[in-house]
Amino acid sequence: MTERPTALDLPPVEPLPDDVAKYFRICEEKLGMVPNVLAAYAFAPEKLRAFSDMYNDLMLAESALSKLEREMIAVAVSSVNKCFYCLVAHGAAVRQLSGDPALGEAIAMNYRVAPLTPRQKAMLDFAVKMTEASHRIEEPDREELRRHGFDDRDIWDIASVASFFNMTNRMASAVDMRPNPEYHAQAR
Amino acid sequence: MTERPTALDLPPVEPLPDDVAKYFRICEEKLGMVPNVLAAYAFAPEKLRAFSDMYNDLMLAESALSKLEREMIAVAVSSVNKCFYCLVAHGAAVRQLSGDPALGEAIAMNYRVAPLTPRQKAMLDFAVKMTEASHRIEEPDREELRRHGFDDRDIWDIASVASFFNMTNRMASAVDMRPNPEYHAQAR
Amino acid sequence: MTERPTALDLPPVEPLPDDVAKYFRICEEKLGMVPNVLAAYAFAPEKLRAFSDMYNDLMLAESALSKLEREMIAVAVSSVNKCFYCLVAHGAAVRQLSGDPALGEAIAMNYRVAPLTPRQKAMLDFAVKMTEASHRIEEPDREELRRHGFDDRDIWDIASVASFFNMTNRMASAVDMRPNPEYHAQAR
Amino acid sequence: MTERPTALDLPPVEPLPDDVAKYFRICEEKLGMVPNVLAAYAFAPEKLRAFSDMYNDLMLAESALSKLEREMIAVAVSSVNKCFYCLVAHGAAVRQLSGDPALGEAIAMNYRVAPLTPRQKAMLDFAVKMTEASHRIEEPDREELRRHGFDDRDIWDIASVASFFNMTNRMASAVDMRPNPEYHAQAR
Amino acid sequence: MTERPTALDLPPVEPLPDDVAKYFRICEEKLGMVPNVLAAYAFAPEKLRAFSDMYNDLMLAESALSKLEREMIAVAVSSVNKCFYCLVAHGAAVRQLSGDPALGEAIAMNYRVAPLTPRQKAMLDFAVKMTEASHRIEEPDREELRRHGFDDRDIWDIASVASFFNMTNRMASAVDMRPNPEYHAQAR
Amino acid sequence: MTERPTALDLPPVEPLPDDVAKYFRICEEKLGMVPNVLAAYAFAPEKLRAFSDMYNDLMLAESALSKLEREMIAVAVSSVNKCFYCLVAHGAAVRQLSGDPALGEAIAMNYRVAPLTPRQKAMLDFAVKMTEASHRIEEPDREELRRHGFDDRDIWDIASVASFFNMTNRMASAVDMRPNPEYHAQAR
Repeated sequence: MTERPTALDLPPVEPLPDDVAKYFRICEEKLGMVPNVLAAYAFAPEKLRAFSDMYNDLMLAESALSKLEREMIAVAVSSVNKCFYCLVAHGAAVRQLSGDPALGEAIAMNYRVAPLTPRQKAMLDFAVKMTEASHRIEEPDREELRRHGFDDRDIWDIASVASFFNMTNRMASAVDMRPNPEYHAQAR
Repeated sequence: MTERPTALDLPPVEPLPDDVAKYFRICEEKLGMVPNVLAAYAFAPEKLRAFSDMYNDLMLAESALSKLEREMIAVAVSSVNKCFYCLVAHGAAVRQLSGDPALGEAIAMNYRVAPLTPRQKAMLDFAVKMTEASHRIEEPDREELRRHGFDDRDIWDIASVASFFNMTNRMASAVDMRPNPEYHAQAR
Repeated sequence: MTERPTALDLPPVEPLPDDVAKYFRICEEKLGMVPNVLAAYAFAPEKLRAFSDMYNDLMLAESALSKLEREMIAVAVSSVNKCFYCLVAHGAAVRQLSGDPALGEAIAMNYRVAPLTPRQKAMLDFAVKMTEASHRIEEPDREELRRHGFDDRDIWDIASVASFFNMTNRMASAVDMRPNPEYHAQAR
Repeated sequence: MTERPTALDLPPVEPLPDDVAKYFRICEEKLGMVPNVLAAYAFAPEKLRAFSDMYNDLMLAESALSKLEREMIAVAVSSVNKCFYCLVAHGAAVRQLSGDPALGEAIAMNYRVAPLTPRQKAMLDFAVKMTEASHRIEEPDREELRRHGFDDRDIWDIASVASFFNMTNRMASAVDMRPNPEYHAQAR
Repeated sequence: MTERPTALDLPPVEPLPDDVAKYFRICEEKLGMVPNVLAAYAFAPEKLRAFSDMYNDLMLAESALSKLEREMIAVAVSSVNKCFYCLVAHGAAVRQLSGDPALGEAIAMNYRVAPLTPRQKAMLDFAVKMTEASHRIEEPDREELRRHGFDDRDIWDIASVASFFNMTNRMASAVDMRPNPEYHAQAR
Repeated sequence: MTERPTALDLPPVEPLPDDVAKYFRICEEKLGMVPNVLAAYAFAPEKLRAFSDMYNDLMLAESALSKLEREMIAVAVSSVNKCFYCLVAHGAAVRQLSGDPALGEAIAMNYRVAPLTPRQKAMLDFAVKMTEASHRIEEPDREELRRHGFDDRDIWDIASVASFFNMTNRMASAVDMRPNPEYHAQAR
């Protein structure tokens, strides 16, 4: 954390509140680093908590979508938005969770050429349409998901994850958030 | 809440947890309604809490941006994304907070013709560029904000609000969220 | 008419020719105002006459399209072009003619979420496609209208109204035409 | 006029009213043909009159813009909209009025490579911006025209002609209007 | 060749190597001119050879696509890219090979209104989709070509020609390559 | 080469001509593989030769642009076109030639966030503008390159490489060309 994680001069509060300090220690232990997105939010612990709560609910909590599927959405959305931070961090996650480095690359570059199941393809088509032109989503788009076996709760989850990364992609680009270098070599 | 607030069949948990029930009662008292976005999330109280925490921090907590300015960003972003729900709900907020119905309309329709200060115009230009093509944001865009007197914390706040509505716009469109009819006539 | 109706310095001819003066008196009586688009043209009565003749033929003369349907096209087209003047003036007309304020808002913001009949939806899909990418119109687009019960004369009328507002939207934006403030509160 | 001038089955009224019949005879004499756009409107003489009145005022009446300049705007706008009818008919007009066949081609294909004066370039830049994204027109765009010597009346005229062809381009594409074959070889 | 064929100051090598000098003499004899694209490359004979070899293989060598069909692809692609040089040179080729001046114009302006066979339409739809958004090409796009009777070698050839003109269009625009004036009047 | 390198059924000629067989052996020795783009062309040796000649001239022959700079252009262009094959193959080349894995990733994802010199940034801005909208290139774009020290020959080379990858990107996407898996782990 010696280099600034973004283009903005917003240093972390000192000292970090106990819960944040503990969270960062867990990150260090489990990931070998504090992801820069968390470091970036450390200037405002209440914002960090709100972000983490939403992130953890969407990406880690129970859902009929597997963690890999949620990361696939994250990467496909980030590819449309050309968000360097999220493509690097979540591309690594797809490689890791899938054990398939080429899959992570394909979704980061153009999910249409990735070897996906029709169900996964439908899921990413919806997420990408939401990203490119959400105002064009109509009932037939939701029906298409249902035809692939997604129920209404699944649709909510797909939509939520896709929406969330449309937020974080823009935040990362707006402040020039820089991914931790460790991600690049992971799971290649 | 007799009509579904979205196109999805996701009824609220019954009974609502105490904190949620209390939150909804406060909404009824203060706003005369429970905004449909909250009703929509009521199927999953932990998601509702994560959403509300982030919303309240961004839109209501302390910031050098006034509440009106934050609502102006919400509306300008929602206009690009053509999000009916957010334009209706936050358009009403701009009309109310500004006491200027025509201003709310102008920002909802095309902020470029609205009577804005140069500082507000720069703020909305940045928010709209983030919405249309966040990957094109570069240092000169942030410099432009600084030239209008925004400091790095302000830039974070502008970026956060703009990012947040890029999330909610897409969520609302993806599930066809319908605004409470009460908004339409407010502050005209 | 004390404030200029556009960003251009083009004062009305003085005195107004009799037919124009009479036309403006009728506007005042029936609408309570002279719409700024007419005031803007008053520097050149022959242009005002050409504009009014075309407008009146398209929007008021006999057609299988109801006046409400023609106004719906006006608003859907103006929404794509983000024309403040036309959205304000014709949004008011949709609210008035339909008696449904939310309908006017929905079409102004994103007609895809408005509660339309399939026939109206097809009509607006055609008008919007003409607006966004007229060169992509092919015979199947006209066929689709015929399948919804429109005959060739109706297609001409839909196309004419959509085309006309693609003209007026651009004219209004090019000269920064400002809607009369009276519209904002009408039929809310 | 044995072949239909559009994809719609809208035959001319029979007999043509005297003024229309006379207008068509003059066209035959002066141009060697009745332009198909007029033939297309002949099913409804009052529409034909409204169209002709506006066309004649914009393209033939007195203006500080030369007839060639107005035709250049027509062609540059029609190029953006990829309108076959208008590119053919007005491309011929540019070739004829300028005596420079290559100029007509260049404006029809990409006005940016045409050998234009800075004043003409500014005029077409404005017309093309109005065509591509009229909602992005702001005061600096009008100022740029003024810097090239256009006064406010000239700006109105540029905007009017550009707007008009955004109407006719869409009308022609919507009904598949077909240009008279005579245009192709003219002034080559 | 007295005027520069592009905006760059890159004069031909002197003397031209024998093979190039011979090639240019053949052009003069057969076409009455050395096409400016070749003159432009004459500063670097090895680049000229590489370009000519690829061009000749794609456009003149044996293929199930007729020379006219290949020129139609060239023009449809160049129309999307608004490349003045290629539209002029290859528009002339379509007029010449088809004996139908209006066909050349229609494809240069908007191939969707040209009188094409369904097979030709499918071919150009594919070429244009490749030009506008190649990343959206998926197996159904290739299947559509097969349904119109194209085999896999034909698909390769369609794709190759469309790709090649996406190269030359950009090259021509990047260096402002100017078409020989002779083309304009050819085959009108 | 047991799996098809594209979605098309176009097997290599058998036996391969001597020069092609030798070329492929050299590839195997130097790269450890025959790049699939070459395998794809092996059904038509004359096409393979034309492609290789142009490729080798552009990417390997003498130029004031370093090989790394040419690969950077390749990747930046391929990123706009979302070409999986070229991003994988040339992304590896940037990583290898620069010794900087993060640089390759950044250019593949969004070159605007990569740590580039102003000269490299100008070079990629030009290449990307050519890719996104070549018809908008005008003299000031070339002037900008000259201001960064590029001479007219350099501009030709930048334009040639950018144009070439606009060809290969489209070819690769049109036939679903699949990158050799070896690339993914290289130079990470």
